Amino acid sequence: MKAEILTIGDELLRGEIVDSNKAFLSERLLRLDVETRFHSSVRDEPADMMDALRRAVQRADVVLVSGGLGPTRDDLTVEALAKTFERKLVLHEPSLAAIRAFFERVGREMAEVNAKQAWLPEGAEVLLNPIGTAPGCMLLAGEIPIFCMPGVPHELQRMMDEQVLPRIEARHPGRTVVRARLLRTFGMGESNLEEALSGVAQGGDVTLGFRTAFPDNLLRPLTRAASVAEAEATLEKVCAAIRERLGVLVYAEGDEPLEAVVGRLLRERGRTLAVAESCTGGLLAERITSVAGSSEYFLGGVVAYADAAKQALLGVSEDLLGRHGAVSEPVARAMAEGARRHFGADLAVATTGISGPGGGSAEKPVGSVCIALASAAGTHSERFVFPLDRARHRSLTTQIGLDWVRRTLLGAPLVAPTLMRRTK
Amino acid sequence: MKAEILTIGDELLRGEIVDSNKAFLSERLLRLDVETRFHSSVRDEPADMMDALRRAVQRADVVLVSGGLGPTRDDLTVEALAKTFERKLVLHEPSLAAIRAFFERVGREMAEVNAKQAWLPEGAEVLLNPIGTAPGCMLLAGEIPIFCMPGVPHELQRMMDEQVLPRIEARHPGRTVVRARLLRTFGMGESNLEEALSGVAQGGDVTLGFRTAFPDNLLRPLTRAASVAEAEATLEKVCAAIRERLGVLVYAEGDEPLEAVVGRLLRERGRTLAVAESCTGGLLAERITSVAGSSEYFLGGVVAYADAAKQALLGVSEDLLGRHGAVSEPVARAMAEGARRHFGADLAVATTGISGPGGGSAEKPVGSVCIALASAAGTHSERFVFPLDRARHRSLTTQIGLDWVRRTLLGAPLVAPTLMRRTK
Repeated sequence: MKAEILTIGDELLRGEIVDSNKAFLSERLLRLDVETRFHSSVRDEPADMMDALRRAVQRADVVLVSGGLGPTRDDLTVEALAKTFERKLVLHEPSLAAIRAFFERVGREMAEVNAKQAWLPEGAEVLLNPIGTAPGCMLLAGEIPIFCMPGVPHELQRMMDEQVLPRIEARHPGRTVVRARLLRTFGMGESNLEEALSGVAQGGDVTLGFRTAFPDNLLRPLTRAASVAEAEATLEKVCAAIRERLGVLVYAEGDEPLEAVVGRLLRERGRTLAVAESCTGGLLAERITSVAGSSEYFLGGVVAYADAAKQALLGVSEDLLGRHGAVSEPVARAMAEGARRHFGADLAVATTGISGPGGGSAEKPVGSVCIALASAAGTHSERFVFPLDRARHRSLTTQIGLDWVRRTLLGAPLVAPTLMRRTK
Repeated sequence: MKAEILTIGDELLRGEIVDSNKAFLSERLLRLDVETRFHSSVRDEPADMMDALRRAVQRADVVLVSGGLGPTRDDLTVEALAKTFERKLVLHEPSLAAIRAFFERVGREMAEVNAKQAWLPEGAEVLLNPIGTAPGCMLLAGEIPIFCMPGVPHELQRMMDEQVLPRIEARHPGRTVVRARLLRTFGMGESNLEEALSGVAQGGDVTLGFRTAFPDNLLRPLTRAASVAEAEATLEKVCAAIRERLGVLVYAEGDEPLEAVVGRLLRERGRTLAVAESCTGGLLAERITSVAGSSEYFLGGVVAYADAAKQALLGVSEDLLGRHGAVSEPVARAMAEGARRHFGADLAVATTGISGPGGGSAEKPVGSVCIALASAAGTHSERFVFPLDRARHRSLTTQIGLDWVRRTLLGAPLVAPTLMRRTK
């Protein structure tokens, strides 16, 4: 079963807003094993809409339309729909009453233009909109149902879940179930991952998708089955196989960011963390504290941008700075150890580097960075060179620092093989 | 001149990611007065791509394609393009060399699959990708140029600006010029702004757009003219009128973030800055140091999440913490003064609050925050309650802190009227 999603609005085609409705609708359709084959968007222009609608019913089994149901003169979706499939517009009295009731409820006067929203193509089924003025509608073009929904995301989402999905399911009972998972990995490039996973989830009823979300690589096994239980069992097996191949490279499932994983591990193990940052300039602390409840395990950090601050607040000696320079493993180690001592933390991470674009030298090019992790077991440090722009340099550096904390708490080795090539 | 934008990728049609590339590309085309008439997306499925490409060249004057240029087995855009327009694929040696060089530069081994990315349709013009492995290409289908770009947003954005837009402009010189500016304001809500600007840029050849980008409100005057000079002169006049009405509320033009404005002012005036953060957890330091060259004026910061850290690293007295609690104006003031003293900075900002979701009390509800700014002239502090989610609470708090620094450097009053309601 194939779907087309058509979204309508000048603001989309002018690039004024990013259209998130299509992703939402596609994800929801997938749960009923309805595959979205086409996304299209056109302006508030009846000829373009009619063309898009005609084409959609030719190539899809179900069509979802969003946008253009409002009261203004730009909102022409219903007219275009009626014209395309040669229906008259008829006043739907219950919808007019619902629109009036809506305005009464929010204590505003109903403008005359809003009455327009109660006119629907003859033969259309109304889709209730309990949180807005624009009702949706379903029209059958032959056997193909066309669902029109408002463009306002929260209205569309509710109408999709409450009105549209049950109708699609009712038209096609007993369909297969589709379920997917997302595994987040850090430390190996996409092509190496693909090699490492060759043979896993190839053929059979599972497909394995790869996606980069810098600095991570994401894996998405997806399966179809007769029941949710069966689908989940298959995914469980595939995820176990992936984890067996990749081990600690898989750091989370779903949307959980690395800082949340680190927080969870720190809390479980009753350990505390502090940071000392130079080149990452607060990003490490910011990520850690973006997690609600982080005050349980995060004691604090020092952003020691100036050398004097490295001395005064972290106890890095002037001698060490003079001998090795601020961007050096000895200074990174002293920063981590200083933070661990000053905050009384179990673990401390330090970063010092040149995120650029300026500040490099022949010996220490832009992109150089030293990272250190201090714990009761001692201090580990590495020097890397990442030729990335400033934002990505900082992002990758913090990701490594957090990953080292995670690996330490798990008792795993600190350096992943392919991404973090050491440069000495 | 009409454009179609075609984006390719199973992940889009499955709803795994929201496609922001289309909005970016449409916005950029608009600068050349090229109107995007159609957005389409199809899966990594050659037949669908070929169909979409054929249709695009029938109905548009220029076609932009993004996605499917990667090295994996899913990446089929170039093959589909070649097949649709009956070209052979040929190895583009300079691109192969560039891909090899890219891997050398980032210190990773090139996987064999990456060589695939150097094969392009015969007759295509290569579009350089200095920050990724996938080169883009332009192919002419009759008179219609088709530009293929990678789907990775930052690679696509750079290729669009550096490679695609100049080629479109060169193919159609002498078109009407569309120019817009963006004025960034902080401290006044959208409806108040609209009132304050009534009569400005109404009618005539300028339209004035309003847009919220939390916590800022953006103003976008847009004009069409025969020449760039004429358009710029019109915009200059409109911007001057807006600035006259709004004064210091306008903090920047274009994409310049507040932290960059603050950095520029600090550098111009030879002043230095330090921060002491509790609830913002490093975000303030992170924003300041996200600006290249910030080491010239930013000395550092302390993220004092635990009370012990507030005492040890900022010299906040135990007595003060005991009497007023960590979230109080006296503690915020002591933090700012401590940071100013410890770092030897001209100015220091401090934040302490409850960003939530937990941690509130009747007296200090979730959303409470105290902000202080210390300078040679003394210390200013305020207490606010912002009923926002954690991320927005932190974002607004840092924006106020930065805006106070800006206002101090400009000799302007510290509190803007409508946004920052004081709660005592």
